[in-house]
Amino acid sequence: MAAVPTLLVLDADPPPRLGRLTGRARVVHADAATLAERLPAADVLLVWDFASHAVRAAWPGEGARPRWVHTASAGVDHLMCPELAASDTVVTNARGIFDEPIAEYVAALVLALAKDLPRTWELQGRREWRHRESRRVAGTRAVVVGSGPIGRAVVRTLKALGVTTALVGRVPRTGVHGPDDLDRLLARADWVVAAAPLTESTRGMFDLRRFGVMQPSACFLNVGRGQLVVEDALVEALEKRWIAGAALDVFAAEPLAADSPLWRMPGLLVSPHMSGDTVGWRDELGAQFVELFERWAAGRPLVNVVDKQRGYVPGH
Amino acid sequence: MAAVPTLLVLDADPPPRLGRLTGRARVVHADAATLAERLPAADVLLVWDFASHAVRAAWPGEGARPRWVHTASAGVDHLMCPELAASDTVVTNARGIFDEPIAEYVAALVLALAKDLPRTWELQGRREWRHRESRRVAGTRAVVVGSGPIGRAVVRTLKALGVTTALVGRVPRTGVHGPDDLDRLLARADWVVAAAPLTESTRGMFDLRRFGVMQPSACFLNVGRGQLVVEDALVEALEKRWIAGAALDVFAAEPLAADSPLWRMPGLLVSPHMSGDTVGWRDELGAQFVELFERWAAGRPLVNVVDKQRGYVPGH
Repeated sequence: MAAVPTLLVLDADPPPRLGRLTGRARVVHADAATLAERLPAADVLLVWDFASHAVRAAWPGEGARPRWVHTASAGVDHLMCPELAASDTVVTNARGIFDEPIAEYVAALVLALAKDLPRTWELQGRREWRHRESRRVAGTRAVVVGSGPIGRAVVRTLKALGVTTALVGRVPRTGVHGPDDLDRLLARADWVVAAAPLTESTRGMFDLRRFGVMQPSACFLNVGRGQLVVEDALVEALEKRWIAGAALDVFAAEPLAADSPLWRMPGLLVSPHMSGDTVGWRDELGAQFVELFERWAAGRPLVNVVDKQRGYVPGH
Repeated sequence: MAAVPTLLVLDADPPPRLGRLTGRARVVHADAATLAERLPAADVLLVWDFASHAVRAAWPGEGARPRWVHTASAGVDHLMCPELAASDTVVTNARGIFDEPIAEYVAALVLALAKDLPRTWELQGRREWRHRESRRVAGTRAVVVGSGPIGRAVVRTLKALGVTTALVGRVPRTGVHGPDDLDRLLARADWVVAAAPLTESTRGMFDLRRFGVMQPSACFLNVGRGQLVVEDALVEALEKRWIAGAALDVFAAEPLAADSPLWRMPGLLVSPHMSGDTVGWRDELGAQFVELFERWAAGRPLVNVVDKQRGYVPGH
């Protein structure tokens, strides 16, 4: 590659580790307002601000387009559009960075719910000593929806705690149930964990009917994407005690609006899309991109390549 | 055994499973007020109300004493007195029932602290969306003090989460550090878990000096006995940020008084002595006693026999 390629970075704060590309990339920054005008001159687009929908808005516009887009996130739903999907542009994601952190976060939520910790801290606030019996986690059953590396890490971690797990993916294969098994598995699960990518076939999959299938003692956890869940249906399921509790780390609209009823829904734990973000994560994301860039610049094949039709990196 | 033995039960509510002893034991109940007068006629004493100190008060009194005392608890500190220790009476405990539940509870607290869940729920109460970075648990270091079955279960569970663990007991042996290693281990621990019995050598072992040895990022957890900790020293260590946080499930005086400063200490999680008490625990305790009773009535050796000098069941 004779000319130094132009790397366009969509972000508010500059990503760490890009200093390593000094002399090997001309780094240009853009925000939502300037992305459209800067896209045509870019060879590579790094979507560092993974909460932004600016790519989806700017991509269908005029002019040349980068040959490669990398997003510093596991999900690609925020940037995909028909024009990008139909193009020759390669899309890669941050596969691998979030798996273990999210699995630990799910374990934290499952254990906190089983041990009734939120109620304990509510009672602490009132200086009330009220002994209760809590639940064992070992011997309970979890269904994890989403058979990518995040879902598989969740399964490993829950298994290590003695939980019996079932993994559900888009197609049945060894160790993975297909969608046809989902309702039967939901009907006997103590924990239902949503860890799937947002695609046309997963959008709204946790609806009133599916919450109705679950056990009254079950808890629902979402660490995937907010739009996997019909939020009104979850509220109804909690109000009617169809399920015992829920924990959401992701929401249809983020940040969650201050007037959302979800904040105050009894039995629902709200966290601000942080399940995968452990100390050092931005540095790891930066290092992962630099490594991919070096592959790309050397003409070697990229890894973490997203199947743009399916909306995720196909795995084993 | 010709005559039907008299089983004296110290409790408020009748224990489950005693129906199985119908015709094989004459069951008599006592409370703190009547224990002293009923002790002389009892062959066996079942201390079902394990929070009561009535045995320690009544035992030194007049008359014959039961040949066997069983307590439905892991600790025996609440019933031991010099007269009981010096007697021929065998003391057994509920060894085994609480191990895995307490280990899960410790894992729940460690994960909740690492993932900053208490702060998340505080923010939820204020409808505030505030993303933070949290900590990984895998790769951190824990010191577990107390090398009995509870401490060993805590080690197994934390190891399953990728935590590097060190177990500290009264005497060094394979896989167990002795007290001489404690300060060195505390100085590099992320999590310090107290799971030791309360004995003369463990009372007040977590004092100001020991909190001073710990890392500023460390968290201290107590699931053993409240008096392992000098509570004022813990408060001072938290106030001075010598350690990052703490979780206490046990206290020097239980229930914790409403005016205790511990309820409102920033960075301190208070729970009401419930770490081992999972659904079905009373039934398990009842079944365990019935099994021991059958051994005893058949003249077979008892298990879970407490070393009355040391104050716990010696193990491997």
